Parts: sequence; structure tokens; C-alpha cells
Amino acid sequence: MACSRFEYVKSFEQGDDVLQNVWIVIRLDGKGFHKFSKVHDFDKPNDANALNLMNIAAVAVMEEFRDIILAYGQSDEYSFVFRKETNVFNRRASKLLSYVTSLFTSSYVYNWMHCMSKKTLLYPPCFDGRIVLYPSDQNLRDYLSWRQADVHINNLYNTAFWNLVLKSGLTNQEAETELRGTFSADKNELLFTKFGINYNNLPAMFRKGTILLRKRVKIENSLNRQLIVDLHNDMIRDKFWKDHTELLGKYKPGDYVCELENISTVLKHQIDKLNTNEKQENIECCS
Amino acid sequence: MACSRFEYVKSFEQGDDVLQNVWIVIRLDGKGFHKFSKVHDFDKPNDANALNLMNIAAVAVMEEFRDIILAYGQSDEYSFVFRKETNVFNRRASKLLSYVTSLFTSSYVYNWMHCMSKKTLLYPPCFDGRIVLYPSDQNLRDYLSWRQADVHINNLYNTAFWNLVLKSGLTNQEAETELRGTFSADKNELLFTKFGINYNNLPAMFRKGTILLRKRVKIENSLNRQLIVDLHNDMIRDKFWKDHTELLGKYKPGDYVCELENISTVLKHQIDKLNTNEKQENIECCS
Amino acid sequence: MACSRFEYVKSFEQGDDVLQNVWIVIRLDGKGFHKFSKVHDFDKPNDANALNLMNIAAVAVMEEFRDIILAYGQSDEYSFVFRKETNVFNRRASKLLSYVTSLFTSSYVYNWMHCMSKKTLLYPPCFDGRIVLYPSDQNLRDYLSWRQADVHINNLYNTAFWNLVLKSGLTNQEAETELRGTFSADKNELLFTKFGINYNNLPAMFRKGTILLRKRVKIENSLNRQLIVDLHNDMIRDKFWKDHTELLGKYKPGDYVCELENISTVLKHQIDKLNTNEKQENIECCS
Amino acid sequence: MACSRFEYVKSFEQGDDVLQNVWIVIRLDGKGFHKFSKVHDFDKPNDANALNLMNIAAVAVMEEFRDIILAYGQSDEYSFVFRKETNVFNRRASKLLSYVTSLFTSSYVYNWMHCMSKKTLLYPPCFDGRIVLYPSDQNLRDYLSWRQADVHINNLYNTAFWNLVLKSGLTNQEAETELRGTFSADKNELLFTKFGINYNNLPAMFRKGTILLRKRVKIENSLNRQLIVDLHNDMIRDKFWKDHTELLGKYKPGDYVCELENISTVLKHQIDKLNTNEKQENIECCS
Repeated sequence: MACSRFEYVKSFEQGDDVLQNVWIVIRLDGKGFHKFSKVHDFDKPNDANALNLMNIAAVAVMEEFRDIILAYGQSDEYSFVFRKETNVFNRRASKLLSYVTSLFTSSYVYNWMHCMSKKTLLYPPCFDGRIVLYPSDQNLRDYLSWRQADVHINNLYNTAFWNLVLKSGLTNQEAETELRGTFSADKNELLFTKFGINYNNLPAMFRKGTILLRKRVKIENSLNRQLIVDLHNDMIRDKFWKDHTELLGKYKPGDYVCELENISTVLKHQIDKLNTNEKQENIECCS
Repeated sequence: MACSRFEYVKSFEQGDDVLQNVWIVIRLDGKGFHKFSKVHDFDKPNDANALNLMNIAAVAVMEEFRDIILAYGQSDEYSFVFRKETNVFNRRASKLLSYVTSLFTSSYVYNWMHCMSKKTLLYPPCFDGRIVLYPSDQNLRDYLSWRQADVHINNLYNTAFWNLVLKSGLTNQEAETELRGTFSADKNELLFTKFGINYNNLPAMFRKGTILLRKRVKIENSLNRQLIVDLHNDMIRDKFWKDHTELLGKYKPGDYVCELENISTVLKHQIDKLNTNEKQENIECCS
Repeated sequence: MACSRFEYVKSFEQGDDVLQNVWIVIRLDGKGFHKFSKVHDFDKPNDANALNLMNIAAVAVMEEFRDIILAYGQSDEYSFVFRKETNVFNRRASKLLSYVTSLFTSSYVYNWMHCMSKKTLLYPPCFDGRIVLYPSDQNLRDYLSWRQADVHINNLYNTAFWNLVLKSGLTNQEAETELRGTFSADKNELLFTKFGINYNNLPAMFRKGTILLRKRVKIENSLNRQLIVDLHNDMIRDKFWKDHTELLGKYKPGDYVCELENISTVLKHQIDKLNTNEKQENIECCS
Repeated sequence: MACSRFEYVKSFEQGDDVLQNVWIVIRLDGKGFHKFSKVHDFDKPNDANALNLMNIAAVAVMEEFRDIILAYGQSDEYSFVFRKETNVFNRRASKLLSYVTSLFTSSYVYNWMHCMSKKTLLYPPCFDGRIVLYPSDQNLRDYLSWRQADVHINNLYNTAFWNLVLKSGLTNQEAETELRGTFSADKNELLFTKFGINYNNLPAMFRKGTILLRKRVKIENSLNRQLIVDLHNDMIRDKFWKDHTELLGKYKPGDYVCELENISTVLKHQIDKLNTNEKQENIECCS
């Protein structure tokens, strides 16, 4: 047959299986989101809608890959943690990486209208991705702590910076100069004295990022099923890992009890999907 | 500083630079496009709009990466060929793979409305990707020949199959049985005698797939600038490589002269962008 | 300078660093040792001198690499276990693999005369090697158990086989037929009834292979220093890991008390080296 | 069976196949040969016997691997070039690397007595190795030119250095100072005026290193068979590649006509082996 003469080129594909029994982390980063957020006029220092759009895109990835037990997002990045034992795509690195990147990107653009209703998407955004392997539970915790420490440092800086610019009328340059060499305590103090802001009272999503976990969600008498829950807790402390022992122990999603009036944007998005006919297509996409 | 204790986890990232002086091919494949095309009611055996949506998404990738000298698409797959000498992202495999996959996906969803105007996108589509390296020019040509031989075989089969189903009223099962064991000549014959179709007269895009090349496009007196041109030629024959010597020789885009009335959907899309204010954002996305 | 024009070829070398925080195992296997042992007339089923030559070659590797905490040998293979934290050669896989392989081979040939005194080495023997990574302590233990279970199965078979051939006068073919389909219990029984051999009384080195550990060796009043000790214990049971807690805990070589009359060939070889002027060269080779 | 429970650890071995259709170069380097050559009192600046021992060890590697078409040695390093099409060990990198390293090392130690007859080997020498891939013929030529330019630069320096030390009685420090900042022309001049040495008349093996090629060797009427020939030509010039067109063309060893009185040490070694009963073992070792 015509194609057989050329088919040898298939043998140039090389194996890239990930080592067994290690945590697989895939981290996505927005490309050029500095410009993207400017062009699309994101609120500064944090745009709650844009962050929830990230969260909803990440939920789609977790719905597709049952072996992701935790995802963590902050700013324009998202990390996905696969169980050590996962055998999805036979652990082929390029398959895992490209599929997660593509599905996240696709969901981001697809849900733009829903989350950013008043704004038109002016050009297609994109994300790059990487795979990192962590052999021990401590390595994994330290990875997540690293990302969460990062959001703290950046967000405190950005909050001070944008208050100086937006409320005190400083130029970007002046605000930068003002903050150069300051410590965390200095910035807390500045926010409080100049702008009456108690940093610790700002929304936890801004200060801690968003953790997505698979939980059996119980909302009063109206709902009892497995969904993906968004939390904004401190993963650096032991408490988080004690509250969610399923993560490092034998994996079995825990319970999450929620009141109807406190339901998050992320949960509401999932429940809305369940209540419409779009449900099936959305959950089963690409499979 | 708080994060320093955790920062060691960065050292777990491993190098994945691509060997120097080889052709880098990234191929994307639609995930579950059998279902996706059904749900979205694509024309059978070929949906010209859906194919041009693929082409337009691929153009966005080529606009972003100047070192892609050729892209080739057929059905739900697209291959991108980077120059051997490219140094983009320092040849880091995961960066190249994830970025191309993300940008293609993003552009596909973003341009859906434009290309598939009458249809609503019901869920986010996605693509997986792989990187394959080809050391010699002959290997590269054989790779492209392999993909193009594939479209020939599949499209001839699909054309016969769907004519049997849509025009003769056979069930899928019956059509499959009818075609089992037939050769190309048999299918050509069947198309001609039963349906009056001369296979070779069907649109070249369906029979040959789409080749994207960077060319200096001259359209009468109205345009003279570098754009990305869509061709549907036979890459298996030497003629193609003689007509476009820039591909395997010293790279310098050749000329492409075109009449206004014969302008393709893909070219028209680029010219429209040039003529609107969206231009800048679209061309510079993500950079 | 003349060479600069060519020096770009250095950039074709690719990174191959081993992931952080995993056990690194390098296993060497004799190439064609079936023939090698025949040509050199090794005792069957086990040649104590040839096994001790393997052990002494492995000691040279452990003397050179302080980060090897355990080596395990059986038949014509040897495994070396590097500490998870090792940073030797910056964890470059090809450096680790080639150096260990070379040093082991070199020491094997160099010590041939010493161990196999009555025999001439007729041609240069060689070994191939591989690197395998084990993330958890359990994985490492299972690896060593796997190799030790292997020696048990093979050695029981070989002992039965060679007794049938050498003492009962069967041909190789007949002995093979006799043993086909037998279980361990059958072979034990056969050895006992036919040849009066209690398998469990055979030398532990033959039944269990050789484990090399770094220990502070105390021989009565004459010696108290760190050396490499050869053991023939059961690594499959927990007891071994409790007796040598340094292996999986905080690494610090334990004590090993030995009587002068029970000193092993492997220990004697090291002590002899200490007592001669060859000492320095041997210990510092290649550094 | 006992071992099945542990056998899963085998799945931790990872693929490492070398890309198809590229030149595979394995380069070995002596570890600590500065000290090794001092301890074993090698002639300075070049020890012909020690170099021929390297050559003879390399011949053993070429005898074993028919797909090595060229080997190049200088100082304490040796490079082996495998045909692009080789399928030995299914192109598994670790197998290729470890086996070549081991066989070279083994042959080096094994042949020590033969080549360095008056000296005792005081400790086992060793070599590390690396694999480098070259896609194009030009890349391969540039690699070999790089190594040959290296020997020229180093040998001219060393020849000047050791003449200053051994004949003019300078200390190492003084000789170093004398040569600092000098160009090639300066060193040539110094050798000629101070020591009456015309550098270009020194043995080609010292100035150019040793190239090993597979040839049909014809020695008058006494021999006509395929052997491995040692040359000391200039590989940087085109002439070499024209004289040995089999290397980059369709591989078929060329002819090499030699007079009995001009036979090299390397050829003599092979012919002696052919004339003894050791022949078979030596050629077939490890297979």
C-alpha cells in the first residue's frame, strides 16, 4: 500500500514515560498575561472574575482526569497534582502535558463569556506548561508551599503598589521606588496607615490562591454528590494536611458540607451545569 | 525570606533540550473528534468550514513562531515543522510542545464563531501533541508524505462510505461491509458508477489536506506583503520541493501571486485582520 | 584559534541528570558469562573464587564512591545503591554509569591473578550496565528482594542440575528433562535423597548472594576502622533492615565485630592492601 | 512464585533509545590519567607504548562492534563512531555506552603486559564515557576535526614544555611561564632553535592522533583479509574523506596495501592473534 514506504518515520517517535511511583505535577503559566490583563482591563491588583475563570478552567481539567487529586492556582498559573500511581496515558509525558494544557486553554476561552460577561475577548490567550516529578510527600508539600509563599509575597507587593497608584495617584515608577527595599511588615503598615486596609481581611482567594479538591459535597437537603471544591486555606501549615488526610493517605474524597447561601462561584458553576442539558457534553468532553 | 526554604523544589525540573540540527515536528491530534464532529453536526465526509477553522488556528501558530516554515493539516490533525536551526525557547521540548498546543487550541475556540457561524460550540474541544525529530531532509519529506498518503487513503474510503450511507441509504454497518477488502481502484469505480463522482475532481483540500507556507503574497495592485498561504498540492512528488526550494535550501520565503477573485478563506482571514484594528493584538498575541 | 570553528559540536551533548531524591541503582551484568565461565573452567554450580573476584571488584567501586551504601552481587551480576541525596558527578547518568562499569571491569581483570591464581585469563571479560531509579524505600527493598529471590530460584535449580550431571552422569539434556516442572520442594527432596545434600547447609554466599556494607570493623585488638563487610543474609525479611538501620535512616555506618579466625576473603583482601604499600594507589585510583 | 511479588520493580527501568538516523559517537576519557601516567612513569611528552595500548584496546571494541566504522584516539581519550543505521542493542543508549566502556577498559588492562612489558600495573585504571549524537555528515566531520585540532594544540604545547623541563632543566613552573602567551609559530621556533626539533618531523601518531579504519589489508603475498588499520592522517582536510569514501558513502571497507617491513604495532598485534590459538576467544569475546 502507498503509505507503507513512508511509515518507517513513525519509529522516530521516542519514549518519554514518567518514572513510576512519583508525584506528577503539571504547571501551566499564562504567556504574556501582563499585556493580556492590561488589554482586557482586569481589575488591579486582583480581578476576581478573571481568577474564577482560571478556577473554572481548572475544574474542567479535574473533571476529565480523575487521577488529579489537587490543583492549585494563583495569578496566571495553575498546578495539577496527579496521584503517584496514575496510569493515565501510560504515564507518557508529552500526552499528559499537551492534553492538560490544551483542555485548560480550551476551557478558559470557552468560559470567557460566562465569567467575564461584560468584556469581549480580543485575541486568543495561551499558556505554556511543564512537568515536574516529586518523589516524596514532603517534596510535594514543599512544592505547594513554594507556590503559596510566592502568591503571598507578590500579592502583598501588588496590593501596596496598586493602592499607591490608584488611590494616591503615584506613577508606576514612583510606586516602585516607594516600595523598594521594604519588608512585609512595612507594606502591611503602609496599607493600614495610608489606606485603612487590614491586609489579612482581604479576600482569601487573593492572599492564598485557590486550592481545588475533590469532595463529596453536601448542601443542606438539596445536593449530595462528588464535586470539586475551591478552598483558600494555608497549605504551608500541617493543619491543612490533617484536615484532608485523603491527599497523602489512601485516596478517598472526604466530605464537604456547605450552606446554600455561601456557595462559591466555582461550585455554583458546576451545579448549574448539572442542572442543564449541557451537563453531559461538558463533563465528558474529549473522552 | 519565607520562600527560600521551599525553593529547592525548583531543582527537580529536568532538562529536555532537543538535539541540535534536526527538523522538529510537532503534531497535534484532536481528542475524541469522532464524537465532537457528530455533536456539532459536521458535514460528512468533509466539512469545509471545520477544516478552514483548523487552518486558521494553524495560521495563528505560524504567525507566532517565525521558525515554522511549513504546517500541514488534514482531518483533525496538524503538523508544524520548525527549521533545524531554530533556537526558540532554547529548543526546550516541553515549552515548544505546550505553547504550540495551547495557542492552536486557543485560536480554534476563539475563531469558532467566525468560521462556524451558524453553530454554537457546545463544549471545549481539545488536542494532544507530540514532538518528533527528523535528522535528514529525506526523513522530513517521508514524514509529510506519510501524513499525505494517510489522508488519501482515509478520504477515499470516507467519501465512498458516506455516499453509500447518505445517498444509497445503507446503514453504517452495511456500508462498512460493502467496502471491506476493496482497493483504491474499486472505490474510484464505485463512486463513479453509483454516484457519478469523479474522485479526482473533488476539492483538493479534501483529497490532499492543507499545506501552509510563508510567502510574499502579491494580489494585483492591492497587496504585497508576507503572509501565510494555503496550498493543496502533492508533497510526495519532487515537483513540490522544486517549486518551493526555500524549504530545504537557504530559507527565504518565495513569491505567491494571486488573483483577487481566487483568494482563499485562509488568506482572506489574514487580510481582514490586517484591515481592522484587531490586527495588532492578533498578530502579537502571547509575546 | 584553529579549534574554535569546530567547537560548536560540544553543544550537541545533552543533559541527562538523574531526578533528585530517588535511590539510584546501577546494575552490572556479565556479557556472555556462560561461555566465559566454561572457557575458564569455573567450578559448577558455583565457583567461590570467581564469586569473590566479583566481590573484590565491587569493593573497589565502593571504596571509590562513598555514596554507595550497599552493593549486592550474585552470579555474574552486581547492583550498587547510591544514597538518594548523592551529588556525585552532579547526578549525571552517563558519568555515573560509565565510571562504575569501567572501574568494576578494571578491578575484575586487575584482581584476576590474585583470586584465580591457577588460571590464565584467556580474553578480556566485559559487563554491561543500567541505571534504575527507585523513589521509595519500599521500592528499593523490593528491588533487592527481587534480585535475592532470583538467586534462590536459580541456585537451587543449578545445584540440582549440576549434581545430576556431575554425580549421576546425566547429560545436560537429561538433567534438564528431569527437572522440568519441579517445584522447590521437589528439588530439595531430590538433593537430599539422591545426593545426601541438605540445601540449607550449603554456603550462604551461594544461596543468598553477597551484600556489601560499609561498617566500622573491629577485629579483636588488632583493627578498628571503616571497611567494607560482606554479608550473606536474607534481605527479604525485616530483620536485615532492623539490624542495619543506617541504610534507610540517617546514614552512619554501624559497627561490625569480627574474630580473627572468621575473617572473610573480602575483608582479608582489604586488610592486606592496608598492610602493603599498594594501599594508597588502590584506594585513590582514578581520583 | 516467590519472585513475582517483587518483579514489578522491573517496570521502573526507563527507555533510552537513541534517535534513528544520526551518527552515534561514544567518547571515553581516562579518569585521573595525569596521576596514572606519572605513577607508571610514562615517557613525556608522549609514550608510544601507552598510546598503542590505547589503540589495541580500541581495536578490540571495533572487532566486537561491526557497526563502528571509525575510531579516533589521542592522549587518554578514544572516540567510536557507529553507522547512522546501526541497530545494535536496539540503539539503547545505556547498553551501548556501558558495553563499549567496559570492553575498552577490560582490553586495556588485559593487554597491559603485552604492550608495557617492563612495567607492573599498580592499580586498575578507569575511563568514563559519554554518548553524543550528530545528525549530519558535516557535524560528524566537525566533531572529529575538533578532537584532532585539540591534539595538535596540546601536543605542540606539551612537546615544548617537556623539552624545556627535560633538556633545559626548567622547573614545571618555569616552563609554564616561558610558554604563557606564545602562539603556535613561537613554539615551533623555540623547538627548532633551542632543541633542533622540526615539529613536523615528529611521529605522526603524536601530532595527529590515531585513526582506526576497517580495511581489506593486503600484505604482499602473505595476507589478504579484513583487519583494522591505524592511520595518522589529517581528518580536517577534504583529502582524507576522499581517500576513504566508504565512510560517508555506502559503507564497504576499502583496500589497504602494506609492506611487510612497515607493518604497524596495531596491525602486528592483530596478525599475531590470527596466528595463535587465542584467536577465536579474542575476536569473539563477550558475544
